[in-house]
Amino acid sequence: MNNFLSLDDVSDPMAFAREAIELKKNPLADMHLGRGKMLGMVFFNSSLRTRMSVQKAAFNLGIQTMVLNVGGDLWTLETQDGAVMNGKAAEHIKEAVPVMANYCDILAVRCFPGLENRDIDSEEKILTAFATKSGKPVVNMESATLHPLQSLADLITILEHQPKPRPKVVLSWAPHIKPLPHCVSNSFSQWMNKADVEFVITHPKGLELGTKYTKGAVIEHDQRKAFEGADFIYAKNWSSYNDYGKFMDAPEWIIDAEKMAWTNQARFMHCLPVRRNVEVADDVLDGPHSIVVKQAANREFATQRVLKELLKELKH
Amino acid sequence: MNNFLSLDDVSDPMAFAREAIELKKNPLADMHLGRGKMLGMVFFNSSLRTRMSVQKAAFNLGIQTMVLNVGGDLWTLETQDGAVMNGKAAEHIKEAVPVMANYCDILAVRCFPGLENRDIDSEEKILTAFATKSGKPVVNMESATLHPLQSLADLITILEHQPKPRPKVVLSWAPHIKPLPHCVSNSFSQWMNKADVEFVITHPKGLELGTKYTKGAVIEHDQRKAFEGADFIYAKNWSSYNDYGKFMDAPEWIIDAEKMAWTNQARFMHCLPVRRNVEVADDVLDGPHSIVVKQAANREFATQRVLKELLKELKH
Amino acid sequence: MNNFLSLDDVSDPMAFAREAIELKKNPLADMHLGRGKMLGMVFFNSSLRTRMSVQKAAFNLGIQTMVLNVGGDLWTLETQDGAVMNGKAAEHIKEAVPVMANYCDILAVRCFPGLENRDIDSEEKILTAFATKSGKPVVNMESATLHPLQSLADLITILEHQPKPRPKVVLSWAPHIKPLPHCVSNSFSQWMNKADVEFVITHPKGLELGTKYTKGAVIEHDQRKAFEGADFIYAKNWSSYNDYGKFMDAPEWIIDAEKMAWTNQARFMHCLPVRRNVEVADDVLDGPHSIVVKQAANREFATQRVLKELLKELKH
Repeated sequence: MNNFLSLDDVSDPMAFAREAIELKKNPLADMHLGRGKMLGMVFFNSSLRTRMSVQKAAFNLGIQTMVLNVGGDLWTLETQDGAVMNGKAAEHIKEAVPVMANYCDILAVRCFPGLENRDIDSEEKILTAFATKSGKPVVNMESATLHPLQSLADLITILEHQPKPRPKVVLSWAPHIKPLPHCVSNSFSQWMNKADVEFVITHPKGLELGTKYTKGAVIEHDQRKAFEGADFIYAKNWSSYNDYGKFMDAPEWIIDAEKMAWTNQARFMHCLPVRRNVEVADDVLDGPHSIVVKQAANREFATQRVLKELLKELKH
Repeated sequence: MNNFLSLDDVSDPMAFAREAIELKKNPLADMHLGRGKMLGMVFFNSSLRTRMSVQKAAFNLGIQTMVLNVGGDLWTLETQDGAVMNGKAAEHIKEAVPVMANYCDILAVRCFPGLENRDIDSEEKILTAFATKSGKPVVNMESATLHPLQSLADLITILEHQPKPRPKVVLSWAPHIKPLPHCVSNSFSQWMNKADVEFVITHPKGLELGTKYTKGAVIEHDQRKAFEGADFIYAKNWSSYNDYGKFMDAPEWIIDAEKMAWTNQARFMHCLPVRRNVEVADDVLDGPHSIVVKQAANREFATQRVLKELLKELKH
Repeated sequence: MNNFLSLDDVSDPMAFAREAIELKKNPLADMHLGRGKMLGMVFFNSSLRTRMSVQKAAFNLGIQTMVLNVGGDLWTLETQDGAVMNGKAAEHIKEAVPVMANYCDILAVRCFPGLENRDIDSEEKILTAFATKSGKPVVNMESATLHPLQSLADLITILEHQPKPRPKVVLSWAPHIKPLPHCVSNSFSQWMNKADVEFVITHPKGLELGTKYTKGAVIEHDQRKAFEGADFIYAKNWSSYNDYGKFMDAPEWIIDAEKMAWTNQARFMHCLPVRRNVEVADDVLDGPHSIVVKQAANREFATQRVLKELLKELKH
């Protein structure tokens, strides 16, 4: 594994998730591995879970971290080839990336989509610039279209809580107050399609995700039918993919205890942050089947598994 | 000691302060104690002394730190139970606190009051959420009503500079340009009331502090009478407590060399930052009896004493 | 060496640069030297290269770092003696500096000029306050008038790439879209004047730098003449020094492949960030003679050399 940009970088996702679970037995066992190594964490967007869990995972492996807030602390970066830089952007990513790479052994990047132009977001200009111009292993800490660290943590969580060998996992669209990216849903779909689960996606008509991510999944527009027999309900909002970035509302899709009763006592999952009583009712989040905090905790071990793998590739 | 939220968490404040002084002899002697431990520092408000002294104290103990600026880098947190989160707050403290706790062994929190509603500030919703929902030891880095790390540093400073066994310590209100919280004054009053000192508070009429903090202290509205025979003058502004949060001005209460001459060559103390020539005249701050920088230095050892105690409680 | 504020703190710049190059052979060889030491990095202005390279250099030496963003996270600092602090500044540098120094073994500071008043900028109030009031070694991470860490990295880069013993180095003014400080050019001039190079400065008439920095250099207003036979072209914009801080435009001074062809196959240098196709054309930056990324990489070793020297002075 040279990078961790998407599912494609992992040869056996199920085995990878199981190895992450193994790390929990003794999280500090590999503290010597990262000695003398520096991880640069570059945030074009803010973050709580990612920021903390990646730092913690690096710490567990003895890797030092440097955090850079590009959006806040720094200037805007130009990404266009051939640009005449007489505007806001004071530095081109062509310089910024190799310069940052100078000081780091591994780079991790968070760069959200603009949600205005699907083609532009799909190009993943920033993530790609890091992967192609840094000469160092790059970790996706949530990009314009994907969030594989989240999906790996999700898979770990499912493996730890599954009531049966091939559980039914339902990704349900949930209402929000503003248009959100597709990254979490795209990645989750990709990973579930490779996992030993029965995977169903449910959402209002018109909110189809990109088929290049969901291909293989069952799409069910009737939320009730989707929920029946489910062992896991994974709630997530996303904006329109076809009418790209458009906000669509459907408040009746909120997930509450009544709907959870349709399931097979399903565990409730969400990548967080969650808007209570908009996406999900308090009775679900505060109920005994919510595993959202454990799911967030698994971000640490997902990242640790990834970093451990990348450390192997580094010359010592 | 499971938390350090207030004076109540310390069984013997005088002994605790003396032990902090002992740490100065060899600050790095306990560097092995914190190996593999992570302290999460969560700032809802900005900070200089606290940010640096807590990081330094953690470092002395071999504890790793992660700093999170909630106010700046992150979204607003919802604290209301049952809220329909369709507004600015993108995450509820019910999730945020246990999630952060996942990645940390100890949490330290700074959360100022709104100064608009005394009842709301007194509830200490954020600090309490950390203490009750994290499952981890929590350190108060200045909350809506208290600042015990400051008070412990203050007590250390008094013990180091007292000219006699039971010195006279005077907390004097001082002018400012805007309404300030009561935390430092509340905490200082609580700690001084437990210390081997003669404790007097002086302020203009109408600026009474809450009796639940000051109970036991002598209140003297004549600044001159209060200063007579004082061994320590501790200057601090606060807004009205009764007319909660209201700004009150009384520029004649500025502390200058002339007033310091009323004292028993008192040492001058202030928690900093101080507005020169508004709260205190240059001749006092630049004079030989000012110990404000030493007082700030003691923040490191106050925190180190607290963290050392909390480390003992952690399972290794 | 007690501080690293300017060239004056280095007795033999050439030897110092060569020692920095030696560090590259085994960057972590001195990791024990900084054990238990804390470097406080204080940013009054934002930064990418400096922030990362200083942290990395400290890490290589086993020094712990604390980063403080004064401009962003904190309040404004008052620098005027005798000020009545009833305005925006909440803390005086007289307290802030010794307080920060309490918690650190070495302090590093970045403080840009206002570019409004040459006399005020020349006083270097903030840097001087750190150097005189901290009681600790202070490193200039770019001040109002100088940027010696950059110049040391520049010298290292020149030594590594010089095609002959005494290369011709040309500092060329380049266009920009807004008025920039003189720090990089001032420092570079000082260092080149002490180095074994033939040093020429070229700029449009009216953009003379201060002679106290350039004294000894050849000034050539014809860019073509200056470029002829050059082994290194160092591009940098600066605003007017005589009409202090005034923006001056001369787009024809852009550096492109055609102009680089006038040189002796010169290596192209720039301190970054660079505005592509405003200061320098893509064909230069993307061409085989651009060494800007290597130049930035050398910031790490320049800083490491400085910190290593300062560590020697610390009492262990």
